[in-house]
Amino acid sequence: MLVVAEKDIAGLMTPEAAFEAIEAVFASMARRKAYNFPVVREAIGHEDALYGFKGGFDGAGLALGLKAGGYWPHNQKHGLINHQSTVFLFDPDTGRVSAAVGGNLLTALRTAAASAVSIKYLAPKDAKVLGMIGAGHQSAFQMRAAAKAHAFEKVLGWNPHPEMLGRLKATAAEIGLPFEAVELDRLGAEADVIISITSSFGPLLLSEHVKGPTHIAAMGTDTKGKQELDPALVARARLFADEIAQSVTIGEFQHAVAQGLIAQDAIAELGAVVTGDNPGRGEAEVTIFDGTGVGLQDLAVAAAVVELAKAKGIATSVEV
Amino acid sequence: MLVVAEKDIAGLMTPEAAFEAIEAVFASMARRKAYNFPVVREAIGHEDALYGFKGGFDGAGLALGLKAGGYWPHNQKHGLINHQSTVFLFDPDTGRVSAAVGGNLLTALRTAAASAVSIKYLAPKDAKVLGMIGAGHQSAFQMRAAAKAHAFEKVLGWNPHPEMLGRLKATAAEIGLPFEAVELDRLGAEADVIISITSSFGPLLLSEHVKGPTHIAAMGTDTKGKQELDPALVARARLFADEIAQSVTIGEFQHAVAQGLIAQDAIAELGAVVTGDNPGRGEAEVTIFDGTGVGLQDLAVAAAVVELAKAKGIATSVEV
Repeated sequence: MLVVAEKDIAGLMTPEAAFEAIEAVFASMARRKAYNFPVVREAIGHEDALYGFKGGFDGAGLALGLKAGGYWPHNQKHGLINHQSTVFLFDPDTGRVSAAVGGNLLTALRTAAASAVSIKYLAPKDAKVLGMIGAGHQSAFQMRAAAKAHAFEKVLGWNPHPEMLGRLKATAAEIGLPFEAVELDRLGAEADVIISITSSFGPLLLSEHVKGPTHIAAMGTDTKGKQELDPALVARARLFADEIAQSVTIGEFQHAVAQGLIAQDAIAELGAVVTGDNPGRGEAEVTIFDGTGVGLQDLAVAAAVVELAKAKGIATSVEV
Repeated sequence: MLVVAEKDIAGLMTPEAAFEAIEAVFASMARRKAYNFPVVREAIGHEDALYGFKGGFDGAGLALGLKAGGYWPHNQKHGLINHQSTVFLFDPDTGRVSAAVGGNLLTALRTAAASAVSIKYLAPKDAKVLGMIGAGHQSAFQMRAAAKAHAFEKVLGWNPHPEMLGRLKATAAEIGLPFEAVELDRLGAEADVIISITSSFGPLLLSEHVKGPTHIAAMGTDTKGKQELDPALVARARLFADEIAQSVTIGEFQHAVAQGLIAQDAIAELGAVVTGDNPGRGEAEVTIFDGTGVGLQDLAVAAAVVELAKAKGIATSVEV
């Protein structure tokens, strides 16, 4: 078994490599060469933790395994971040474990890469303004990946807690883009591409906010009850998801489906746009990508990082 | 993360240590301090493999994690056994992975320990004769563990393929017990304790075979459709399982329930006998333990082996 430590991921994995891995696995999913296993997610009744497994098999990329870990809300007392995960890869020819990879930074990169892939394929032509809803830890990853996928000229940002907007400003500066903090109505009216990445449990971006050709990557909703978008906005958009079944159960689209505003068959896989089987934006004014996060994404970036670690000779080999 | 290699398990883990670990975790389950997560089991469409995860959390023993792996039927061409698994333990206080342990021998030992625990608590008084149904790889583990749990005087054996009975004879000799190959009617009439450990898809041991006070550990059935016992035999016995929900879906008791011969509430947890909350055999003539195999068993023996490896200084520490 090769082990790639969390501390080595930053020096190995780039947004570009994550983008390639996620684009490829979305295409494998759309070609029915790759599928996700049922997700296990348990409130274990200890430290208020949520723990579980996201597994899958990519028969094209030959990646098999799972991400295991979860959310430990009191980890600060141990000097650790709250999200803790590890990815385990298995040899699909023999069933033997082949790699253990620190999953924390990889999760951030693969989530950012998913919205970036959606921007590459679904952003309006000549999109210039990127709108960011949310200024938490993950927002910086999303912005950096978006800027690699498309040449934006400006970033607008909004956050439920305005005092956190400094992160968006600093990240925009790092990329070399001007930044402006705005209210949601201006963000919705002026941004050509919007990424929402909050932990909201109610709609933030309303249908009347959004004007003109716009692509929205809704990345924050990954649990029953969470919500970032007005269901009326979802109802008027062309809809895409990483995995349709998950988008209507724990993703952003759960609400519009529950309210009878959309049917599940109105949602297409982003991977089908990658493969060319779905025309993508077409004549739609608004497109929405619901990024719920699937195990195959974790396997894809972990497999990529193992190859990079092998090439650089920094994977630790240990017999198990 | 500590790594304990498959090759080191044999030198670390004993049937006695496995027995203690399984007895304790069955008690934790009965006290509702430990529970198993939903099992993921997937035919991945590659190498005819079955792959999946069995996870759980023991809040008493503080063991959290999963066994991942499965069944690769063509592994002989790689010089490997068909069952391949690895156990991963996590720190329940932080969510960080704490150990990776080779799971192949451990699976054999924990399965054997489960039937041994059932024998300790459910065997008729003065049981002298052990009957073995099945002579595959796992049968030797079952017999060795049974002989540690109870002082038998003789072993009777039967196998669908009589040419394999040499394994039972050799194992009995190793333990120091006389062995006799018999037909199932004699085995059922003379054995006080019977362990069935086959891959049968139909009843082998019939109700009319079994005479007098008898305990049966049905260990082979772990999948929908598999079957070792006559449902009429199940219907007349006092019933115990490692996990009731699993016993009626993929365990031996699936058939008697499906035929309406027993209700699920006729089944007790073996752990409740361990804790003293269930009287066990009582006045019953026949008792049956349905050992389906749960993730908590894997975590229990893996946690025990990690402690043994630490004590002996042979766990490999690697940063992940």
